[in-house]
Amino acid sequence: MTQTTQQRFMDLLKEQSSYGEAIGLMAWDMRTKAPKKGIDGRSEVLGVLSQKVHEIQTSQEMRGYIDELKGNVADPIVQRSLEEAEETYEKTAKIPTREYREYVTLQSKAESMWAEAKEKNDFESFRPYLEKLVEYNRKFADYWGYDEHRYDALLHNYEPGVTVKVLDEVFPKVRKALTHLLQQTQEAATQPDPSVLEGHFPKDKQAQFSEEILKRMGYDFDAGRLDETVHPFAIGLNTNDVRVTTKYDEKDFRTAVFGTIHEGGHALYEQNIDPKLAFTPLADGTSMGIHESQSLFWENFVARSEGFWKNHYELFKKFAPESFQDLPLEKFYPAVNEVKPSLIRIEADELTYCLHIMVRYELEKALIGGEIEVKDLPELWNQKMEDYLGVRPQNDGEGVLQDIHWSGGDFGYFPSYALGYMYAAQLNTAMRKEIDVDQFIEMGDFKQIKSWLTENVHQYGKMKKPLQILNDITGEGLNPDYLVSYLSGKYKKIYNFS
Amino acid sequence: MTQTTQQRFMDLLKEQSSYGEAIGLMAWDMRTKAPKKGIDGRSEVLGVLSQKVHEIQTSQEMRGYIDELKGNVADPIVQRSLEEAEETYEKTAKIPTREYREYVTLQSKAESMWAEAKEKNDFESFRPYLEKLVEYNRKFADYWGYDEHRYDALLHNYEPGVTVKVLDEVFPKVRKALTHLLQQTQEAATQPDPSVLEGHFPKDKQAQFSEEILKRMGYDFDAGRLDETVHPFAIGLNTNDVRVTTKYDEKDFRTAVFGTIHEGGHALYEQNIDPKLAFTPLADGTSMGIHESQSLFWENFVARSEGFWKNHYELFKKFAPESFQDLPLEKFYPAVNEVKPSLIRIEADELTYCLHIMVRYELEKALIGGEIEVKDLPELWNQKMEDYLGVRPQNDGEGVLQDIHWSGGDFGYFPSYALGYMYAAQLNTAMRKEIDVDQFIEMGDFKQIKSWLTENVHQYGKMKKPLQILNDITGEGLNPDYLVSYLSGKYKKIYNFS
Repeated sequence: MTQTTQQRFMDLLKEQSSYGEAIGLMAWDMRTKAPKKGIDGRSEVLGVLSQKVHEIQTSQEMRGYIDELKGNVADPIVQRSLEEAEETYEKTAKIPTREYREYVTLQSKAESMWAEAKEKNDFESFRPYLEKLVEYNRKFADYWGYDEHRYDALLHNYEPGVTVKVLDEVFPKVRKALTHLLQQTQEAATQPDPSVLEGHFPKDKQAQFSEEILKRMGYDFDAGRLDETVHPFAIGLNTNDVRVTTKYDEKDFRTAVFGTIHEGGHALYEQNIDPKLAFTPLADGTSMGIHESQSLFWENFVARSEGFWKNHYELFKKFAPESFQDLPLEKFYPAVNEVKPSLIRIEADELTYCLHIMVRYELEKALIGGEIEVKDLPELWNQKMEDYLGVRPQNDGEGVLQDIHWSGGDFGYFPSYALGYMYAAQLNTAMRKEIDVDQFIEMGDFKQIKSWLTENVHQYGKMKKPLQILNDITGEGLNPDYLVSYLSGKYKKIYNFS
Repeated sequence: MTQTTQQRFMDLLKEQSSYGEAIGLMAWDMRTKAPKKGIDGRSEVLGVLSQKVHEIQTSQEMRGYIDELKGNVADPIVQRSLEEAEETYEKTAKIPTREYREYVTLQSKAESMWAEAKEKNDFESFRPYLEKLVEYNRKFADYWGYDEHRYDALLHNYEPGVTVKVLDEVFPKVRKALTHLLQQTQEAATQPDPSVLEGHFPKDKQAQFSEEILKRMGYDFDAGRLDETVHPFAIGLNTNDVRVTTKYDEKDFRTAVFGTIHEGGHALYEQNIDPKLAFTPLADGTSMGIHESQSLFWENFVARSEGFWKNHYELFKKFAPESFQDLPLEKFYPAVNEVKPSLIRIEADELTYCLHIMVRYELEKALIGGEIEVKDLPELWNQKMEDYLGVRPQNDGEGVLQDIHWSGGDFGYFPSYALGYMYAAQLNTAMRKEIDVDQFIEMGDFKQIKSWLTENVHQYGKMKKPLQILNDITGEGLNPDYLVSYLSGKYKKIYNFS
């Protein structure tokens, strides 16, 4: 009888993840292919299917399976699926249905209000929506519960195991090191010349080069595809259908090339999850931070390295415009690694990127904690940007309104980006103890690098929690020293300071 | 209270059609964009969602709404939706659940077995599957019931109101006329020279011309898109997202150009259904035959007409290769209208097309009626092709295995193609009483033609039954004389006989 209940439980999870795949495809389609007039109708369909997923997650049927099977199953996949299902059940069931519905409606309204407000640099028109979103998230955090800081309850959604206590210890340390490094690069006598990268680089040539690199990374085009979008993303519909999108800027190839490799890193993760996890809630990245460690590993530790360009610069030149043909690698490599404090997170270089994240973390933590209010955000944002990066937005479009996250109610998400970067540095160090990463990068042979990541990270999906993955690989928890040491080594060499 | 039940009924229909839209998008994606390795997982998801639709259609909840609301609602849309829901309920509920599941499994297996058998010209490997499909369809027809011929029960699924009795009266008459016409064209002294159409016509140029024609027809690219597939189709996800696909043959532009216009005719129908019918089962073409009348009207009555090319030949030449630049219209127009008995239905010309349909109709009618058996099909097929068209397949790939329909269990579908053609001729005659069709075609101004079709056909969706639409427009039922007279007039002129 337990066998039958188990089978029915797994069937229900399969139904749930089938809706998930359909929702994923609709989302991909809306951003890449769907005709604009069809969007309204499609949103309604998305609403119906999302509601269905929510109903399953909080159903009496699901509760019944959990109660009956808990502590009563041998199969580890079923065991972990039960844990995931129970956590989702508890989390969802704690929010009153009426509030959940209001919140979903608010989210979709807020996102379009944000887009308009950003366009017009008009924070005030978005403020009332953001206030409500913050209010709901405060309430939800209280429903869910936490030990020390209300914000911990939100962090848990994206990076289970990481708390305010951890971040407040790690982030200031990293900030201090990065700020110091930044100053050193700015004062260095040797400065890269990014103007050498200028010139018209046709979209199709960028696409051909990007596709070639994706193939070399081991991205399987028979289980994926590459399309163009305004906001690049990777999405796993199932492990055999993981799609990447990218954005082309004909004036700056870096957007597409590094962007595609970044999304390719996410996609490799999803393509290489153990097929046995298919149609369970485990067939997904284990956390936002671990996901980001994969994309950032490929984007920065591989594709922005000197060895990578030693090997791939000749290939690059086959697709690149005339102006690159006589540009020596010694000028090209520093140029693609220029450090320059800037206003926009997604355009930031490797060194300043984490500082952007810290601005956001401190503000959202204080918002959720009730220490600041939404109306204070623009000024606080600008002040922090000036303090940490030395640049000050001239308007809210390039300031507090630049990111979509808050408009969807995603508080607690931003730290994942910085955590992912630190994880990537820790993985990078561990990998180098086992294989000769530099040599493989210089040979343009990524098979063993990809295999190492699959073996240690990808295959597990959600079978292991993020800090367990980290610990199994490195023997320690979150440790920012590896990132600081990597960045320091890299920029000392490029900027020639000691 | 009735108001509340009505709302809940319409909500359930909305849920059902939301799954329908998701299923439609997945189907489109599988044929156009999906990576090949993802197909298996996707098929499972399709299975889950199709099962969901089936559950809703046959649910106690649905039965309850039907019983409570029937004869008890004022809104005509709700009224017709009730009728549709009840018909679907009755039809589906009459099949035992076990048999339905077996049949669904059989269908998907049979389709892949058919593809393999066709590839290898091996009817025997497909025969056992086809035998089972026929057996199920015989049983289903008996469950559903019929007055005179068991095949009527299947015909009803595609063309309600049309029966064996009607077809057995109409088809032989048409066959006689077409055979006679065919003989006249073959014996005529004037013969078109199709070799003038030969030459390499690049895909992208064909696409540009096809898109331009679609736009002129009034196809809204903001509510649709054009992609490439092996088997062209049009699919309406919602009225604001109706997609067209086409196939390019660089050696023969006719495949893509006439194919795109054909699918464009289907798409115009779906784009112009009254938006008030959205999320009901009425937001769809009223029958396969009426749908086909729209595609064939545009493909044949418009795009294969002399007036069309008088206007569009100059535009065509802008995209066409060198060899067309000195080819006079007087040679081009007869060439694209060459009549030639051939083996493959989808490559048939306007005159012989219906003869292909009749071969299929007679065989499937006899199969379902139990007068012939599956094992006899190949020989009977070849014999009928020889009798009606004077050509004999050399293998089953170009004979009985050429079409996908039977492998999906779609018996009763084929007659819709011929009916659609006759309907189109009837609509064409009726339209000409109200607007100067020839003049508009020659001017390349299709606005009024499209409006006429929207007003008389498109807008209603399933609000009107097919024969009601026909009768409201023409004042009569199915009448093949218009088609015969149209073809006779056309070919007399091209082949110059009297």
